[in-house]
Amino acid sequence: MSNLALSAVESQPKIETKEGSYKIVSTTLIFKTTDRVELKSITREIISFIEQTPIRDGIVQVSSLHTTAGLLLNETQGALLSDIASMFEQVVPRAVYYKHNDPLLSDCDRKNADAHLRALLAGYHISIPIANGKLQRGTWQNVLLAEFDGPNERSVHIQVMGI
Amino acid sequence: MSNLALSAVESQPKIETKEGSYKIVSTTLIFKTTDRVELKSITREIISFIEQTPIRDGIVQVSSLHTTAGLLLNETQGALLSDIASMFEQVVPRAVYYKHNDPLLSDCDRKNADAHLRALLAGYHISIPIANGKLQRGTWQNVLLAEFDGPNERSVHIQVMGI
Amino acid sequence: MSNLALSAVESQPKIETKEGSYKIVSTTLIFKTTDRVELKSITREIISFIEQTPIRDGIVQVSSLHTTAGLLLNETQGALLSDIASMFEQVVPRAVYYKHNDPLLSDCDRKNADAHLRALLAGYHISIPIANGKLQRGTWQNVLLAEFDGPNERSVHIQVMGI
Repeated sequence: MSNLALSAVESQPKIETKEGSYKIVSTTLIFKTTDRVELKSITREIISFIEQTPIRDGIVQVSSLHTTAGLLLNETQGALLSDIASMFEQVVPRAVYYKHNDPLLSDCDRKNADAHLRALLAGYHISIPIANGKLQRGTWQNVLLAEFDGPNERSVHIQVMGI
Repeated sequence: MSNLALSAVESQPKIETKEGSYKIVSTTLIFKTTDRVELKSITREIISFIEQTPIRDGIVQVSSLHTTAGLLLNETQGALLSDIASMFEQVVPRAVYYKHNDPLLSDCDRKNADAHLRALLAGYHISIPIANGKLQRGTWQNVLLAEFDGPNERSVHIQVMGI
Repeated sequence: MSNLALSAVESQPKIETKEGSYKIVSTTLIFKTTDRVELKSITREIISFIEQTPIRDGIVQVSSLHTTAGLLLNETQGALLSDIASMFEQVVPRAVYYKHNDPLLSDCDRKNADAHLRALLAGYHISIPIANGKLQRGTWQNVLLAEFDGPNERSVHIQVMGI
């Protein structure tokens, strides 16, 4: 585990340069969720939105507008999505004491402390570069809306920035 | 947990498009912390800085310039902040053996391995879109400076990019 | 843990403003890893790439194009890197049951569920502001490629955006 020996395999990688008038196109999409914990790909909706904008090169930022629903990047295989949900239950169990769930200390009646903590670990925004109109992502990388306090309606802000 | 059934509730959501001359305005703010672990909203300072810039549409990136203090997005309710601190103590306990704290293996005399690991899980930067001069965030989303090795003075870089 | 008392130490911090023609320069670098779990600084390669671009002010986004390798920001001290690897083994143990590793439920023969879950907690992209051609980062902040399913060849997308 050294920080010295790493070197790029390609010494002359391909470099792309673009220049132009800066544009921002944004929207908010609303997604319904049906389970308390649910991981669902919203990749198709993001790609569809990018295609509706005039921006071919830049970046898209996808943001959850909630504190109990986050965003993840991962595969959409059902077995793995189940493992991800299990991991969040292991790391942040639902049925333990939380001050946020204690009526003596909190006015929140959703008793959703676990959902806050899980979303916080998941993170709330994903940024993916765009080149020639396409997301620059790995083969298996999908954007997953990570619902931790459903069923719910969740607002996801999508902002495309570039040229 | 399917990746198929997700669909936007609104089929024709509102789309905003802006175009103009690209600007970057940045600063570094310094915050004092008083406890070893402390979660404090810096949302007001970020909003105040954005209002001082000519940028009305774009994005703000807020970056911790430290490895033992991170940034989170969440509510500011006291009970929940206490639960967040407890979660970090559960997931990354302070009083266990770490090589980074072992004088035989490390020249760090702060014995703050837990602070590094907690900040690493929290993350070091938050990006929030800006539209018409306002942060595009959820009702309960506040930017929290997550101090894990205080008391300290922490530098937070704020960069507003857009038009 | 109050959200009220925080205030910037400097009431009149230095503010930098830049304006100009927006440019995007991007590339994909490939890094070889030699261990199953490996944390390696790629900071030098990122700085070197930025220096090859005409962009002096803006931001760089570094993205892992994989689901089992992430990116972290932290020190490169060997003892601490070992603690980070141990933390991921504690939080997401390798040798427990995962559906993704079960041939009855999954067609993945790499049995790398732990790598997916660890990378997901680590995160897949890092964004660092650039001013006057230099990364705006803390003294100890290095970008670490976090390999969780090596040895492998990993593609890291680097995109510099600004003026």
